[in-house]
Amino acid sequence: MAGTGVADHPADLGLERIIFLSDGLFAIALTVLVIDLRVPELPTAAGSDQVAAALSALLPRVFAYALSFTIISFYWVAHWRRFKLIERANAGLAYVNLLLLAFIALIPFPTALIGEHGDIAISVMIYAVTLSAAGIAGFASWVYALRTGLVTVAAPKDLVRSGAIRGLSVPVVMLGSLLLLPFASTYLVEATWLLILPVQWLITRRVSR
Amino acid sequence: MAGTGVADHPADLGLERIIFLSDGLFAIALTVLVIDLRVPELPTAAGSDQVAAALSALLPRVFAYALSFTIISFYWVAHWRRFKLIERANAGLAYVNLLLLAFIALIPFPTALIGEHGDIAISVMIYAVTLSAAGIAGFASWVYALRTGLVTVAAPKDLVRSGAIRGLSVPVVMLGSLLLLPFASTYLVEATWLLILPVQWLITRRVSR
Amino acid sequence: MAGTGVADHPADLGLERIIFLSDGLFAIALTVLVIDLRVPELPTAAGSDQVAAALSALLPRVFAYALSFTIISFYWVAHWRRFKLIERANAGLAYVNLLLLAFIALIPFPTALIGEHGDIAISVMIYAVTLSAAGIAGFASWVYALRTGLVTVAAPKDLVRSGAIRGLSVPVVMLGSLLLLPFASTYLVEATWLLILPVQWLITRRVSR
Amino acid sequence: MAGTGVADHPADLGLERIIFLSDGLFAIALTVLVIDLRVPELPTAAGSDQVAAALSALLPRVFAYALSFTIISFYWVAHWRRFKLIERANAGLAYVNLLLLAFIALIPFPTALIGEHGDIAISVMIYAVTLSAAGIAGFASWVYALRTGLVTVAAPKDLVRSGAIRGLSVPVVMLGSLLLLPFASTYLVEATWLLILPVQWLITRRVSR
Repeated sequence: MAGTGVADHPADLGLERIIFLSDGLFAIALTVLVIDLRVPELPTAAGSDQVAAALSALLPRVFAYALSFTIISFYWVAHWRRFKLIERANAGLAYVNLLLLAFIALIPFPTALIGEHGDIAISVMIYAVTLSAAGIAGFASWVYALRTGLVTVAAPKDLVRSGAIRGLSVPVVMLGSLLLLPFASTYLVEATWLLILPVQWLITRRVSR
Repeated sequence: MAGTGVADHPADLGLERIIFLSDGLFAIALTVLVIDLRVPELPTAAGSDQVAAALSALLPRVFAYALSFTIISFYWVAHWRRFKLIERANAGLAYVNLLLLAFIALIPFPTALIGEHGDIAISVMIYAVTLSAAGIAGFASWVYALRTGLVTVAAPKDLVRSGAIRGLSVPVVMLGSLLLLPFASTYLVEATWLLILPVQWLITRRVSR
Repeated sequence: MAGTGVADHPADLGLERIIFLSDGLFAIALTVLVIDLRVPELPTAAGSDQVAAALSALLPRVFAYALSFTIISFYWVAHWRRFKLIERANAGLAYVNLLLLAFIALIPFPTALIGEHGDIAISVMIYAVTLSAAGIAGFASWVYALRTGLVTVAAPKDLVRSGAIRGLSVPVVMLGSLLLLPFASTYLVEATWLLILPVQWLITRRVSR
Repeated sequence: MAGTGVADHPADLGLERIIFLSDGLFAIALTVLVIDLRVPELPTAAGSDQVAAALSALLPRVFAYALSFTIISFYWVAHWRRFKLIERANAGLAYVNLLLLAFIALIPFPTALIGEHGDIAISVMIYAVTLSAAGIAGFASWVYALRTGLVTVAAPKDLVRSGAIRGLSVPVVMLGSLLLLPFASTYLVEATWLLILPVQWLITRRVSR
């Protein structure tokens, strides 16, 4: 860290540490997801058929892993884009960011739930609500940063707007999908979540230069 | 890292690395908490009622998760505020900070304990003592930094004072609550811990500009 | 972080955060591997013979740990070398890097699989395919960075070329070894994976100054 | 990151990333230790006596946790001190550092082993050998850095010497203790490991200014 003359202390480690903590926690959430992907204990002499059967029984968990990894990735990219425009930190930003991290850290729990009991409505609801809460907390952190003047004044208007709507594709699609729950099978509801991909892609495309 | 002329080595990576290690460990402690939030193995054909019952049996663990996440967050914010005022590091600071981290890393253990056996006095005591120990170690690290001249001389007096008392709201409330243990139910004792929130809020408000 | 004059915000935190996230995730993937190395629950009064037997039954998992640790290390060093030559980041790089990280985060799963069921062809295939996918995603991220002009123009031609072929030693050896699977024992196939070491060493030697 | 003029790329991210990866992995190794500290599944209606008995049965694991946390802390401080004097990185340093990290990442395994089967000679041997291997790998990385000219020429002679001997207190005491194994109880052997504390303290004291 180049010193600024007198002290060899970084000028705004406050902002940097919020980012260190966030990147660390995102990295762990992404990695902890896989702990649930386990072949159940088989007899040591288990043959090829038994292992293959155990593996294909894992497929719903692989789907859950891929889905959660993708959504956490979107949230990380949204966080990354927002913090490129944030130039100062205060305690409020630290707390609202910790609220977002609390929901990100929770994600392995509903992921395991839909991996094991994805055919049950309550699992689908808990998954949709937890992941949406993370998206809404991300939105709240951006609104907070704007309101308290932490965002650089040089930020282009369209990036400020897209910083707000970016992560909202997940709560919109997921909470919307819950309206189908009384009428459709849980698998159909989960299938609608794939709409997050084109929606996110459209947003990314519109904003990227 | 901008070089300072001759060497391209950062000037005070010593201080930065204490922060890297701390942020990494805090992030992991926050995330590991959720590993205990697990639906028990149910029969594959488990119906909606069984899953719902298993989930509501998890509610004490969700409370334990939220409580520990909140307190670790307070400790991280306290650490973050203190290290904004610390401008140099020495080996003593590294060790006293590792003592703090040892208690932070322990927190998932008493969290699981009150999540599973929160109705038993010994669980409540172990939780209160471990989390208070982390708060006291944080206080000790601040006193150490002040005594050995690691804190910037430009630090405002009130920030120096609040840096000391900040994390102490947790040990004061928690150790105090243990005095109720012979007279009150464990749930009442745990309920008094919510006093940490207003106490912390008062401190934060008094100090923030 | 030395300010660049007006704002105290780092100039290109975008690139740095991709690196923070990657280093965090690599560190966790390397550490999570060991969670599978566990002595099974033995009776408390278990004698020396029982513990020794349990430990020698773990030897295939120790081999799996060492193999995966080595390959993830190669991938980290390849990532480290490539990002020394990348001087800017964009959203595309963030996503292609997350694809690589998705496969790195998966590695503990096939590692546990060959540690427990390394005598079964399907385990060998899943291990080889997952670890090769990580190598190919690393290659793709380098091609992407080159095509979109993120690599410094000052990068020596031979480093650009070696940046491409570097991680490919793993997919070439591993996918090639699968051709032996119909004819040879799974252990022989796994033994051929040791060829990655001399191949990687040759590449490293040719490139290092 | 202050730009160096033309490119906004950090000048020596190579060295920094070795440190990021190391700090991340040390932080995780310190935190993963606690996963083994678990109260066994008790009946939901378990009374105070049962929980207290389960907790006191955990005491050997608490000792193992404290011991491993302390030794990993020493290794981290040794790493921290050494890298303050290292001003450049090359691929060899990355690899020798990864060898050290491989042993650090392994430590939770022998820690669980002596926590559960600390009364058996083979557990004591595996613990002593693994933790000593980490100390020796740290020594090797320092010798490598000195030999290949990565250490700053301005490094005081006594710091260079102490950088070499620093982490060796652990292997000297631990491997030495194994000589007692045929004659003494495993608990006595483990008790001799406490000698690491005064030895380390003497070294630290002699070197600190």
